[in-house]
Amino acid sequence: MRQSELFTKTQKNFPAEEEATNAKLLIKAGYIRKMSAGVYSYLPLGWRVLNKINNIIREEMNAIGAEELLMNTLVAKDYWDRSRRWHTDIAYEFKSPFGEEFALGWTHEEVVSALAAQFISSYKDLPLAVYQVQTKFRAEPRAKSGLLRGREFLMKDLYSFHTDVEGLNAYYQKVIGAYKKILKRLGLEAKLTEAAGGAFTEEYTHEFQVLSPVGEDTVVYCSACDYAQNKEIALVRGGHRCPKCGSEVLESPGIEVANVFRLGTRYSKPFDLRFTNKNGEKELVVMGSYGLGPTRAMGTLVEVYNDAKGIVWPEAVAPFSIHLVELKSENPSVRKFAEKVYAQMTKAGIEVLYDDRDASAGEKFADADLIGIAWRAVVSEKNGDKIELKRRDAKTAKSVSLEELLKKLQ
Amino acid sequence: MRQSELFTKTQKNFPAEEEATNAKLLIKAGYIRKMSAGVYSYLPLGWRVLNKINNIIREEMNAIGAEELLMNTLVAKDYWDRSRRWHTDIAYEFKSPFGEEFALGWTHEEVVSALAAQFISSYKDLPLAVYQVQTKFRAEPRAKSGLLRGREFLMKDLYSFHTDVEGLNAYYQKVIGAYKKILKRLGLEAKLTEAAGGAFTEEYTHEFQVLSPVGEDTVVYCSACDYAQNKEIALVRGGHRCPKCGSEVLESPGIEVANVFRLGTRYSKPFDLRFTNKNGEKELVVMGSYGLGPTRAMGTLVEVYNDAKGIVWPEAVAPFSIHLVELKSENPSVRKFAEKVYAQMTKAGIEVLYDDRDASAGEKFADADLIGIAWRAVVSEKNGDKIELKRRDAKTAKSVSLEELLKKLQ
Repeated sequence: MRQSELFTKTQKNFPAEEEATNAKLLIKAGYIRKMSAGVYSYLPLGWRVLNKINNIIREEMNAIGAEELLMNTLVAKDYWDRSRRWHTDIAYEFKSPFGEEFALGWTHEEVVSALAAQFISSYKDLPLAVYQVQTKFRAEPRAKSGLLRGREFLMKDLYSFHTDVEGLNAYYQKVIGAYKKILKRLGLEAKLTEAAGGAFTEEYTHEFQVLSPVGEDTVVYCSACDYAQNKEIALVRGGHRCPKCGSEVLESPGIEVANVFRLGTRYSKPFDLRFTNKNGEKELVVMGSYGLGPTRAMGTLVEVYNDAKGIVWPEAVAPFSIHLVELKSENPSVRKFAEKVYAQMTKAGIEVLYDDRDASAGEKFADADLIGIAWRAVVSEKNGDKIELKRRDAKTAKSVSLEELLKKLQ
Repeated sequence: MRQSELFTKTQKNFPAEEEATNAKLLIKAGYIRKMSAGVYSYLPLGWRVLNKINNIIREEMNAIGAEELLMNTLVAKDYWDRSRRWHTDIAYEFKSPFGEEFALGWTHEEVVSALAAQFISSYKDLPLAVYQVQTKFRAEPRAKSGLLRGREFLMKDLYSFHTDVEGLNAYYQKVIGAYKKILKRLGLEAKLTEAAGGAFTEEYTHEFQVLSPVGEDTVVYCSACDYAQNKEIALVRGGHRCPKCGSEVLESPGIEVANVFRLGTRYSKPFDLRFTNKNGEKELVVMGSYGLGPTRAMGTLVEVYNDAKGIVWPEAVAPFSIHLVELKSENPSVRKFAEKVYAQMTKAGIEVLYDDRDASAGEKFADADLIGIAWRAVVSEKNGDKIELKRRDAKTAKSVSLEELLKKLQ
């Protein structure tokens, strides 16, 4: 699309009220806007990034046989009463004008268990897995980390249903595999970290932790093998020997970008979610729950991929495939050529942001670096009928023809 | 996908607590589930239909140059105070644990005006249009019409920004054109009806009304020309002469599936949304707002397209392109052929629901009719290596080869 028609503009200064790098950069570049503490709107650029992330997530969820649905956000008190999670600190609870009491969905074990109880009756109905990509609401006391800890945020939550723990364990490993693929495709390196269950379960769970100085968790991990535990439960401390292989153990702050929980029968019990086994006996369904936050992943990506000039998106999640920059010229052939490049890219189905604005070269280059699309193509009087192509993270550019550029991008 | 693996099952009886045909059929067939009055979860089948509807909407919104974004749901009291819409009857308002007061977004003129004020400064920035497909929340006193009037529902809301009323009027007509295309693609015939502005504006607005006995509005319309007004403002009554052409005027209940509003400066004023004109003077931005509800459209489709056996989806919105039904047989070649048909359809990228369940022919046919996918293909011992193909709304089937079927569906 034409940058002159984009809803947003970059801004000169960082927003004064933000502390977190991800929020500072995303606001300055016009991806998001803060509406209240921990509450953001996703502007067209930001929404494009989120869609890239969501599509990758959906592909990998579908690949492990999970079915997408959309559950309700107004979750009546009765559901939480059954699982004894009414009056959880983190919930936004309120009374409707008609006297009904609701909590805004902050997680959906209750709702999904009630739904599953309608459709699961026999061992033949199992296993099953469903997921949604949905706005969740959590009354986080601290909301100073931008997209890393929002009060309103997107969550992909997946729930699985099994006849027994063996079935759950097998699917749990499948989800871990899918999460590894998703994070790799997003460009995030994460440690699979053992952790406590929090509000969900008494058993150990696993978190995917991206090591980052701004992480709120602390990960204790081995310098040599795959040992990694959340400091809350870690058997050793940094500097000690790894309990698995004896090498040195390190400590780092981490951003939890995903987690996997064995719920067991914690929710099937209160929701009477049972199946008839092969012997005709009723048994409780065994459940798992698995979360991965697209908005938190977006914030994490910005924390990992940025430099002094702005964001440096990995190709898979950049809002556009290429940023076409036309440098103003008295010579009308420059505009004409830029328009030709834009038209041919568009025709070829390439997602291109075309900076056709009446602005200086300096301003255009600074904006391109700030916005951070992986490839930048410059059309200018100096370049003539060639295009100067540069990766956002490279120091040098190279000169290519339109044909070479189109070939490269397809 | 395989029906044996589908999260939902059809149910034998209509849900006792529902009055509306759309909710009765959608629940019985496993598309949605009622969670509270006016609050539904969209199960995998229902979510597929919604995605079909949303994609059609998005294509037509993008075609008129509107950019997609996602605004916040927790909208702080301050925003509503500025437009004097705090304490609107229809809003769910509450205080957070931190003392902030919010209304759940039931419409987004306030938020979008505040956002636009950050990015619009000159006449060169205009016109602009942005939209979102978002869950909205409204404390509807009556919530007995299924998806036609939900308390939590999907809304596509579009907002446009202009230098003057002429610009607004031109875009208003563009949106009307886009809405006509969307409704036509969905299979909904609607009357473009003049109406009062409601909470939004003092001027006349337009609604798209689908004539239906279950509609909550009353449309007064001409039997010959395109005159149509909401009864609330109609110049004449049914039986009278049309004020435009003199023909007979009729009355019918109508379901409002979309609306378009000229907001003028109603919201740009309180949000100080101004631009500098060509003479260097500050002027208020002129706005329009345009709504179309995907979930209400889904409910309306079921009200329009159903028969004694179930839903009869138009092809464009059916959850799958075809329902492949395998009739149980002692002869293993039937299962083998059905699997082959399923594999080849899947390979060809055709969205197919494959009824591979261990159920009787009667049960399978009844479920296929209830679910209402536009095409049904039966593999059975009787049919041999042919497939019995039938439209959901046709009385007779015809026998086709697998090659013919694949060709037809591609």
